[in-house]
Amino acid sequence: MVTPKYLTGDKPAIDEFIDRFDTFLFDCDGVLWSGEQVYPKTVETIQMLKDKGKRLVFVTNNSTKSRAAYKQKFDAKGIPCNEEDVFGSSYSAAIYISRILKLSPPRNKVFVLGEAGIEHELASCSIPFIGGTDPSLRRDMTPDDYTSIASGAALDPAVGVVLIGLDFHINYLKMSLALAYLRAGARFLATNGDSTLPSHGTLFPGAGATGAGIVRAWGAEPLALGKPSQAMMDAVEGKFHVDRTRTCMVGDRLNTDIQFGIEGGLGGTLAVLTGVSKKEEFLGEGKEIVPTAYVDMLGDLLG
Amino acid sequence: MVTPKYLTGDKPAIDEFIDRFDTFLFDCDGVLWSGEQVYPKTVETIQMLKDKGKRLVFVTNNSTKSRAAYKQKFDAKGIPCNEEDVFGSSYSAAIYISRILKLSPPRNKVFVLGEAGIEHELASCSIPFIGGTDPSLRRDMTPDDYTSIASGAALDPAVGVVLIGLDFHINYLKMSLALAYLRAGARFLATNGDSTLPSHGTLFPGAGATGAGIVRAWGAEPLALGKPSQAMMDAVEGKFHVDRTRTCMVGDRLNTDIQFGIEGGLGGTLAVLTGVSKKEEFLGEGKEIVPTAYVDMLGDLLG
Repeated sequence: MVTPKYLTGDKPAIDEFIDRFDTFLFDCDGVLWSGEQVYPKTVETIQMLKDKGKRLVFVTNNSTKSRAAYKQKFDAKGIPCNEEDVFGSSYSAAIYISRILKLSPPRNKVFVLGEAGIEHELASCSIPFIGGTDPSLRRDMTPDDYTSIASGAALDPAVGVVLIGLDFHINYLKMSLALAYLRAGARFLATNGDSTLPSHGTLFPGAGATGAGIVRAWGAEPLALGKPSQAMMDAVEGKFHVDRTRTCMVGDRLNTDIQFGIEGGLGGTLAVLTGVSKKEEFLGEGKEIVPTAYVDMLGDLLG
Repeated sequence: MVTPKYLTGDKPAIDEFIDRFDTFLFDCDGVLWSGEQVYPKTVETIQMLKDKGKRLVFVTNNSTKSRAAYKQKFDAKGIPCNEEDVFGSSYSAAIYISRILKLSPPRNKVFVLGEAGIEHELASCSIPFIGGTDPSLRRDMTPDDYTSIASGAALDPAVGVVLIGLDFHINYLKMSLALAYLRAGARFLATNGDSTLPSHGTLFPGAGATGAGIVRAWGAEPLALGKPSQAMMDAVEGKFHVDRTRTCMVGDRLNTDIQFGIEGGLGGTLAVLTGVSKKEEFLGEGKEIVPTAYVDMLGDLLG
């Protein structure tokens, strides 16, 4: 049985833990903040790690914001961060589509179910897309929609990928179009599969939830490119040239963050209890995903 | 290996099959019609069975229409039918809530994710409800919604059940409210779990798809009260006093209609190939759900 080390209040253990790593990969929602509320001492903790010369990379499954938009959120919260230190699931998906799938005309367009973050990252990789925040799709189905979707007249024949992420504007029309594209042979990708989104101290539906209708109707899971997909870890390693044995993943969710770090062969993982997973899920016999250490909240690393 | 009898074009086999039953339970979508399009010879086939003195019950998982609304659709299509011969999953759910759950104040309200059919059937059983077609919920989430859902201020403390059915107006706000009610202890019911809705000769997302986001976010399945739930079969038997050994279920979907008939111990099941399931799914070795007989389309029963 692996027992994770509880670091809160144990200054010597904290220092020893921090010294083992050169790079910290941080999840954001549930670790740094919940919605708009930043957890206490987050700013000071990030600054302390930077002062110790650590490299910090913010690895988030939240697909709704581009790296640039994330940088703005960090700035607004007073958390020190460079845009190039942010690595989101939208960016991971865009890299996968441009470097691995390498789609070429006439079927190289992406039908997006998600928000502006996905659109910005696809555009940054010069990938053509439709859907997303298109206001013409934010409406009820009409009788004509049924007819034109069924006949294929409503479908863009250039679409070769359906990419689903967290979509705050999911509706029946967009679900119907996505299903029709899949039935017409499009590949099925997802930025991430998180079932919930921690915000305002509770849980709201996550990307895995807003996309679940299409998964259910289509009958098969998409390839998810956010945590815990190792496609994302490979992309992080390729970009930042990290030494995995000297890298620690910090997160609140066992089945995304901690699993991501363990499967990636990182030197360590640190769970925080401010988000989704509770300590009962990794303490005790027979637990599958167990972090190296845990703290009640990130700010406890200040000692 | 059970081999279903292929009846199309085999007049003696058709007559023998029909003679074995006094009652036929009919699925509607994918059997009688696809969306607004009635399959050829449907009207004549229904009339032929009535002329032979058969009792016909229309057992549908489509929760969007009440029995009264269904009767109007039958009338418009020229298909002979009485309102009391329609048995929908919304009605099944309303009966379950009123007779089995027997909710009493102060927690006796149902939060509905679905269309008017569910509302009408709940009202017919004097069950109080909110949500459903309420136009105030057909909008984007606001920052205030996050706050009031998280604090509980947006929640009606009288809600004791979340009931999901096919919702053409599913959105993030309604999903967030449903999740919050479940987290507050509400029971989780569904009219049905059909992943797709056959319409216009293709497939659109079904009740199982529009409700899948809540299932994914909550992490547990609802109790589904439509086919193949035997709660629905028990209710049909209780209302119509049918002799199960002399009853045949007619449907297009193996994992709802045909399974419903087999698990209900009916005398027979008849699959039609106009809807979701294809004959490859029940012909051959090792198939789990096999109908007694099948036809290409319902009208083939005319011989």
